[in-house]
Amino acid sequence: MKKLKSAGTTISPVEWLDGSNTVRLLDQTLLPHKRVYLEYSDYRELAVAIREMRVRGAPAIGVTAAYGIALGADRLTESGRDDFLGRLEEIIGTFTATRPTAVNLHKAARRMKEVAIRCTSASQIKVALKNEALTIHREEEEASRLIARYGAMLVPEGATVLTHCNAGALATAAYGTALGVIRAAYERSKNIKVIATETRPLLQGARLTTWELKQWGIPVTLITDSMAGHFLKSGKISCAIVGADRVAANGDVANKIGTYTIAVLAAENGVPFYVAAPTSTIDLSLPTGEHITIEERSEEEVTCIGRKRFTPEGVGAANPAFDVTPHYYVSAIITDRGIHREPYLTTLKPGASRGCA
Amino acid sequence: MKKLKSAGTTISPVEWLDGSNTVRLLDQTLLPHKRVYLEYSDYRELAVAIREMRVRGAPAIGVTAAYGIALGADRLTESGRDDFLGRLEEIIGTFTATRPTAVNLHKAARRMKEVAIRCTSASQIKVALKNEALTIHREEEEASRLIARYGAMLVPEGATVLTHCNAGALATAAYGTALGVIRAAYERSKNIKVIATETRPLLQGARLTTWELKQWGIPVTLITDSMAGHFLKSGKISCAIVGADRVAANGDVANKIGTYTIAVLAAENGVPFYVAAPTSTIDLSLPTGEHITIEERSEEEVTCIGRKRFTPEGVGAANPAFDVTPHYYVSAIITDRGIHREPYLTTLKPGASRGCA
Repeated sequence: MKKLKSAGTTISPVEWLDGSNTVRLLDQTLLPHKRVYLEYSDYRELAVAIREMRVRGAPAIGVTAAYGIALGADRLTESGRDDFLGRLEEIIGTFTATRPTAVNLHKAARRMKEVAIRCTSASQIKVALKNEALTIHREEEEASRLIARYGAMLVPEGATVLTHCNAGALATAAYGTALGVIRAAYERSKNIKVIATETRPLLQGARLTTWELKQWGIPVTLITDSMAGHFLKSGKISCAIVGADRVAANGDVANKIGTYTIAVLAAENGVPFYVAAPTSTIDLSLPTGEHITIEERSEEEVTCIGRKRFTPEGVGAANPAFDVTPHYYVSAIITDRGIHREPYLTTLKPGASRGCA
Repeated sequence: MKKLKSAGTTISPVEWLDGSNTVRLLDQTLLPHKRVYLEYSDYRELAVAIREMRVRGAPAIGVTAAYGIALGADRLTESGRDDFLGRLEEIIGTFTATRPTAVNLHKAARRMKEVAIRCTSASQIKVALKNEALTIHREEEEASRLIARYGAMLVPEGATVLTHCNAGALATAAYGTALGVIRAAYERSKNIKVIATETRPLLQGARLTTWELKQWGIPVTLITDSMAGHFLKSGKISCAIVGADRVAANGDVANKIGTYTIAVLAAENGVPFYVAAPTSTIDLSLPTGEHITIEERSEEEVTCIGRKRFTPEGVGAANPAFDVTPHYYVSAIITDRGIHREPYLTTLKPGASRGCA
């Protein structure tokens, strides 16, 4: 893995570098103060980077895992199809073991496997996997743009929008989901304001969302997660928009820890609560959110901030990275196929007709 | 102001040192890693310490302001009663200007003034003010003990209790309000567990609550504020107990930012939500919580953690230090007079009969 500092203007979190067949990440753990690009030629190191959240956000880790599988396959020396597929299985397993909750990664891994199986030779598999990864990336970009266009219809002129965590370009390998909606609404009316929660423990709101919004010129005020309820009660917030890591068939939404709290407080105060997510985040195989595996991360992310420990030695912490918001708190789910409302069990199905904004 | 390191076992946040007529604070901004005592002979420096939250918690700052007024009066050289009272007015104003939300400070200031007015000479006022401050401190200690005794009846054996911010010995100059209740319940049954929110921005939960509970041997798990909803929904929490900074006549409660969020999530999930506060925190002059002034503190407390800035330069933050929880989310208010339930407008009045646990 090579480390490159850059002052470039792109904020693309992940790229396939075609000349060298390597994967380049923007290290999100160092933002906003340092913009460091990491170049991976070893798929195992890339899998570690996903686990360490150097790249994060459900769509972005789906794209990264797809590239990682293509990267691992590209370096295989096995020439027989069956041997090749056996080794590929290991590579795919390395990526699916990194993070359990976001479904995009698991869907991408499945697609890559299916593509490989359809090929007749090792060399054909290598080419097909690279192309499939690039296709997944392009599809996520296109989904982002469509979500932004549909979602912007839900944001009134002059709105103050609450968002949680980061569902921007950094999280999606493209335009952003929740932040894409906000950006499209801003491009239309220029008078949108954002309130961003800091999103402990890893501060994606304070570090990443404010950074993206500032680059786009959208006014943003940072709050601690504990202030979300107070502001939702204040009457100053027009709507809340968040991303998602996995949406069950009934519309239950797994997203960054704290999302459920915001959804309940929004409902209690009559504020619309919207989820913006590409179709790749919807998992129709799960009837409800109860079946979603919630990743438990290390205690140190909670007992420390940055590298500084604030908590007495010997005191432990819990660190569920996600929570599940029941569908009845969700006013609408914005996908690349349109705006979905209750009953989600019907409206989330491919081909279902969707109501307008 | 003298700075003294100490390895003593006391965790009393404020003391009057009789020999030197000075006020000693345990610097709570440095806990849990450093235990530093600060000795004040200048009342203005003590007022700054209150604003900087070297001492915090509604009952503790009430006691500190009372001692501060006695300290300021003790150093006055005016011998005429009227001149003395004129200068005393300035001293009192310095303390009432420090923090607006917690009512204890303002009540203590009013008591000190009334005591002074009843005296006939400057020297008599000095003695009377010192005695009144000591009385206020003793009353808070006694109130803490009574709250703990009443409140413990509400905590079932084997309970897991959620608490927010710090309402322990550090906040109350005594046994603690919310933590006092937990401690008394633990002393009775030994099988109480606590989940403590870290309480951004100043991390009183992570730094102070865990530290106090650890000293008492009570098991505690730290969570971020954003996790409170997830745990309240999980069915693992028996009740939530918090302190208060001001309680209006109708039972609306101003307390550390994030309290309202916890109260709504508790109600939504059928978990009892209790407020523990001494009578000195009840402000019967305010009909509802809408009239409570919410202190807005500096942006840097949100954009930085410790001294490290995590947010991009140029991004601003909001920092309301408190929120108001409407009375209908409050299952009971535990005071030194017993357990009060709806209708608070009747039950919080002095002399009203209170139901049992």
